Amino acid sequence: MAYPQKAFVSTTFSSPSFISRRRQVVYANTLLYQLNVLKETGRYDAFKLNWHPSYSDKPNVWPVPNHLFWDSDVAKWIEGACYFLSWKYNAEIDAAVKELVEMIRSAQQEDGYLNIHFTVVDPKGRFTNLRDLHEYNAGHLIEAALAHQDYYGNDLLLQPILKYVDLLCKTFGPGPDQKHGYPGHPEIELALLRLFDKTKDARHRALAEYFIEERGNPRGQDGRHYYDVEAELRGEGEHERPAYWTEERSFWYQQAHKPIIEQETIEGHSVRAMYLLTAVADLVRIDNTGNTGALRNALARLWTNMVDKKMYLTGGIGAMKQWEGFGIDYFLPSGTDEGGCYAETCAGIGVMMLAERMLQLNLDAKFADVMELCFYNAVLTGMSANGKQFTYVNQLASTDTDLSKRAEWFTCACCPPNMARLLGYIGGYLWSQKVDEKSKSVEVAVHLFSSAIIKIPIGDTTVELEQKSNWPWDGKINFAIRNAPEVATTIKLRIPGWATDWKLSPSTPETVLEKGYLTLSPDWLKRHNTFELDIPLKPRFITPHPYTNQDIVALARGPLIYCLEDFDNSWVQDHFKSLVLDPAGNITEDVASNPELGEPCVTLTAHNAAFLRVEESLGPLVPLGKATVKERPAVQQLKFIPYCLRDNRGGKGHMRVGIRRKH
Amino acid sequence: MAYPQKAFVSTTFSSPSFISRRRQVVYANTLLYQLNVLKETGRYDAFKLNWHPSYSDKPNVWPVPNHLFWDSDVAKWIEGACYFLSWKYNAEIDAAVKELVEMIRSAQQEDGYLNIHFTVVDPKGRFTNLRDLHEYNAGHLIEAALAHQDYYGNDLLLQPILKYVDLLCKTFGPGPDQKHGYPGHPEIELALLRLFDKTKDARHRALAEYFIEERGNPRGQDGRHYYDVEAELRGEGEHERPAYWTEERSFWYQQAHKPIIEQETIEGHSVRAMYLLTAVADLVRIDNTGNTGALRNALARLWTNMVDKKMYLTGGIGAMKQWEGFGIDYFLPSGTDEGGCYAETCAGIGVMMLAERMLQLNLDAKFADVMELCFYNAVLTGMSANGKQFTYVNQLASTDTDLSKRAEWFTCACCPPNMARLLGYIGGYLWSQKVDEKSKSVEVAVHLFSSAIIKIPIGDTTVELEQKSNWPWDGKINFAIRNAPEVATTIKLRIPGWATDWKLSPSTPETVLEKGYLTLSPDWLKRHNTFELDIPLKPRFITPHPYTNQDIVALARGPLIYCLEDFDNSWVQDHFKSLVLDPAGNITEDVASNPELGEPCVTLTAHNAAFLRVEESLGPLVPLGKATVKERPAVQQLKFIPYCLRDNRGGKGHMRVGIRRKH
Repeated sequence: MAYPQKAFVSTTFSSPSFISRRRQVVYANTLLYQLNVLKETGRYDAFKLNWHPSYSDKPNVWPVPNHLFWDSDVAKWIEGACYFLSWKYNAEIDAAVKELVEMIRSAQQEDGYLNIHFTVVDPKGRFTNLRDLHEYNAGHLIEAALAHQDYYGNDLLLQPILKYVDLLCKTFGPGPDQKHGYPGHPEIELALLRLFDKTKDARHRALAEYFIEERGNPRGQDGRHYYDVEAELRGEGEHERPAYWTEERSFWYQQAHKPIIEQETIEGHSVRAMYLLTAVADLVRIDNTGNTGALRNALARLWTNMVDKKMYLTGGIGAMKQWEGFGIDYFLPSGTDEGGCYAETCAGIGVMMLAERMLQLNLDAKFADVMELCFYNAVLTGMSANGKQFTYVNQLASTDTDLSKRAEWFTCACCPPNMARLLGYIGGYLWSQKVDEKSKSVEVAVHLFSSAIIKIPIGDTTVELEQKSNWPWDGKINFAIRNAPEVATTIKLRIPGWATDWKLSPSTPETVLEKGYLTLSPDWLKRHNTFELDIPLKPRFITPHPYTNQDIVALARGPLIYCLEDFDNSWVQDHFKSLVLDPAGNITEDVASNPELGEPCVTLTAHNAAFLRVEESLGPLVPLGKATVKERPAVQQLKFIPYCLRDNRGGKGHMRVGIRRKH
Repeated sequence: MAYPQKAFVSTTFSSPSFISRRRQVVYANTLLYQLNVLKETGRYDAFKLNWHPSYSDKPNVWPVPNHLFWDSDVAKWIEGACYFLSWKYNAEIDAAVKELVEMIRSAQQEDGYLNIHFTVVDPKGRFTNLRDLHEYNAGHLIEAALAHQDYYGNDLLLQPILKYVDLLCKTFGPGPDQKHGYPGHPEIELALLRLFDKTKDARHRALAEYFIEERGNPRGQDGRHYYDVEAELRGEGEHERPAYWTEERSFWYQQAHKPIIEQETIEGHSVRAMYLLTAVADLVRIDNTGNTGALRNALARLWTNMVDKKMYLTGGIGAMKQWEGFGIDYFLPSGTDEGGCYAETCAGIGVMMLAERMLQLNLDAKFADVMELCFYNAVLTGMSANGKQFTYVNQLASTDTDLSKRAEWFTCACCPPNMARLLGYIGGYLWSQKVDEKSKSVEVAVHLFSSAIIKIPIGDTTVELEQKSNWPWDGKINFAIRNAPEVATTIKLRIPGWATDWKLSPSTPETVLEKGYLTLSPDWLKRHNTFELDIPLKPRFITPHPYTNQDIVALARGPLIYCLEDFDNSWVQDHFKSLVLDPAGNITEDVASNPELGEPCVTLTAHNAAFLRVEESLGPLVPLGKATVKERPAVQQLKFIPYCLRDNRGGKGHMRVGIRRKH
């Protein structure tokens, strides 16, 4: 059960819980809302291969046609729909999936090709610009087909997709007549490895491996970089630069500036980087040749670089708008007026994917900590409480040009359906399991907390583990295990890295935390089939690394990062930019039950606030002491709410996570 | 005497003084050193119009040929050489100027055109790409011709330049057969206005005015932006972007995104912006139509934006390497590892030019403060003590990729000869004068301090004002005025904005500072023909604006900004990045007399230093208190030297101006 998209079916969420409420919103609102948008925007019917007026639009981001990713928008929606259908049937969703599948089948070309743009708009352009226009959509179609097959149990979607993949296997590879290219936007690599997991067809694994290992080869095609050769064949001018390239041959944007095993730092478009490394981790995991040590090292190196030097307090990644990706080490401004902050929702989802894969390679809670941080902050902030509004960019501070406001849809609409499918299979992230039929043993590692049951078949019995909690609002989690006596079950409980205090009841004879996981042995579990983990959730101040030059403090409680909004602090005029906060002060907790938030949530109130005062027109040299703090107008209290619940109650869109620290 | 390039001849520097020592170095070393480089690199002979092998080189910065500015390198050297010849004759320099002038004359085409690249390399390309390849060189040739005419008293250079300008006047303008363009790199505008000052030829002024007012017109040529039209005529691809453009149509790089009077913030290439605004200020000053109010407002607005929000502690401007120019408001990182710091030497020289022009429009010491700040820091740091090494970029902190090291020359060699010519006419910045023959009155405003005499002819007598000081090391300045009794002389003494304390002896009956200048009346001066201004120079801490997110302190003393170098603090391994300094501590002064510094200079020593300690691998969330300060290894003392004297004594090239503040 290496893939959460497969494993999630073992998990049933119970109500009420934070995650089950979010899932219910997606089921009840988001999927149908998005279906309607797919129809209204032309995406739904696009596989009919008729011309759509928007195909003539000038690209917003040259050279990428605005409709290039329509296939993937539909595919992600199908994938998400199938996950939710397996939970609760919905006739409208079911009918739409079936109709879409019929349309996709009908759109396939004789040779297997299956892509709207390169069939309707630019048939001659097929495979001529992998760098920018790539076969990213194919990856999402594969994932949709796998989800479809799992739910419907038929091959109506998988069959045309396999035919498409056959064409790709013929087209790309090391052979003399094959193209030595790889998609500029990774995704197909991880999809092909998931496909291989189903088909066991060695060609599927080999193509993924080829795309991964060929990537960034400076002499891959005719002794030159593949992207140079195809650009020349397209007749592209030497000085033509895609909008997202800062300089000519900015192949780092596509993580193709050098082979992955030589990459020292994580660079470029952040979603691409996450999807690519997720596939790399899968490749390493299934390796049985012993030859993937360099890839494993690259994974560790790039993960560490990202988490320690290129990740926001919210788990968001990507500071730079131009390339939707990573800046230099420690360049993590809070918003547009400081130089940028992108933290795309899809990138947060990508971090979760990669973190889950890293956990499979190495059960270390540091990966689960990041996975949880991203989920509750960088990712969930991307959807409104009602499930009908979304963000693409998730800045840590608003500005007049970039208010903290969600939108109903996007031209490039990757994030909304990505959110829907994530919540469809989120159960697959909660815990992981190892089953050894021979020794009749099971190991469950609990990564995330909620209210849910996992059922693990072994032999002719089933191990059930249940957790009940009001996480992330309350830190008490009650566990119950139902285990046939002949099965030896071990549980590994994650203790979050930020937890300075926690308690297991009943207690274990000795408490050994191994890489952040507490082991409960089969013997102990036989004596204690219920137990409670209590992780007191207290507000705490966090800061980014000093080298970010962000002298700010932010409030966190449990896995949640908090923010200020003008809704609660209506005096704000400047997006809290001049606000200063002394973290020495006391923080009080309240429970808010505003229905618009969708959650009865814990709010936090700070009291030691003031404002920065800088005398006007001091020029470049401010004498020491001229930047002072004024206590008037007095701020009686600052009210914080979780960042993921922002922009649900109206307001001006002024918001800030990290507050300037008062010294 | 509106132009310092004309006015400087009234000033004689006396030794010893900081400025006279720098001038002597340029005279004795720099001019001949640069002459030799001009010869070795091919620039000297280039006006012979032979092919040079480097003309085939691929541009380092597409689409600008590497040799495009050779004409201006030579022109600036001639200009500087003429200024220095008027001080002290040197046969070798004299001979070289004469030979160069002969070569320039011989390079002129029949129709007056005079440009190496567009004569030898690309004759068909003339005037086809003003946006990138422009007539910037023409401006420097005009300035060289003016300096040449002033020193030699003949028209050997001015005559061909006037013929060239005739061609430009015919080519550009509002007429139906004229090109409605303007050079992408301003410079010719200010040169044409200086030329007009000499020739009184209305066409010269009109062309400058046209270039200034047409700039950024969105419908200037056939209803479209001139740069769009000429790009189309060149057959340039829509998506071809010069290396310095972040996006298509980045006309802000050239300050041509909108008309100057509509520009709200200072943007783009910083040298271009300074040269352009200098010309704007000149145009406003000589205006007699009353129609330049909008230009005057733009000047004030852009100056304020620059000085308050886009200027470094050193007076340097330009954070962004890609476009050698301004970033967003308050984006002023100290070095490459924080996101950039450019602060080009020529840009500092440009700020001085603009500040001097602003002073002429409005005698306010805030302009002189910036002029002096730039001179002593952003500009003088650009040349080594021996006058043979130069910087182009002047970061406030070094990194491993950008050490604090000067170079012997540059492919684009604008800065070295710019420095030479600036020191040639620096006397023109010291003070300004107004002479009223009718009322027999003279007003001298003293902007900078040194040891020098200015002689101001009025009627058949001469007013002489002498200042003697060891500025910037010592704050005592002794003045003596020699004034015929019939002349009413007023002196306005600048009191620097940073001076918290100062004293005039003998004192004046009442002390009124008007916009930073202290007025000494004719009556008072008749009673006191000698007086002393004492501005105690004490070390002081300065900081940038808090919105820069640079929580640093820097040391200044008088107009000098200080820095740390590894030469004096040899333990440094990380460019002082982890160093923290408590500004509450005591600062001690010493006098260093290291001959390699070229100056017996005041060094400063701080004692309250420590190091930042951040625990490893904390990921994105650093719990409050985990970034601490360690007192070991103890730093007994931190030794600072003036930033302008850095990199004169060897060492590793580790340097930093702003030190992280210890709280």
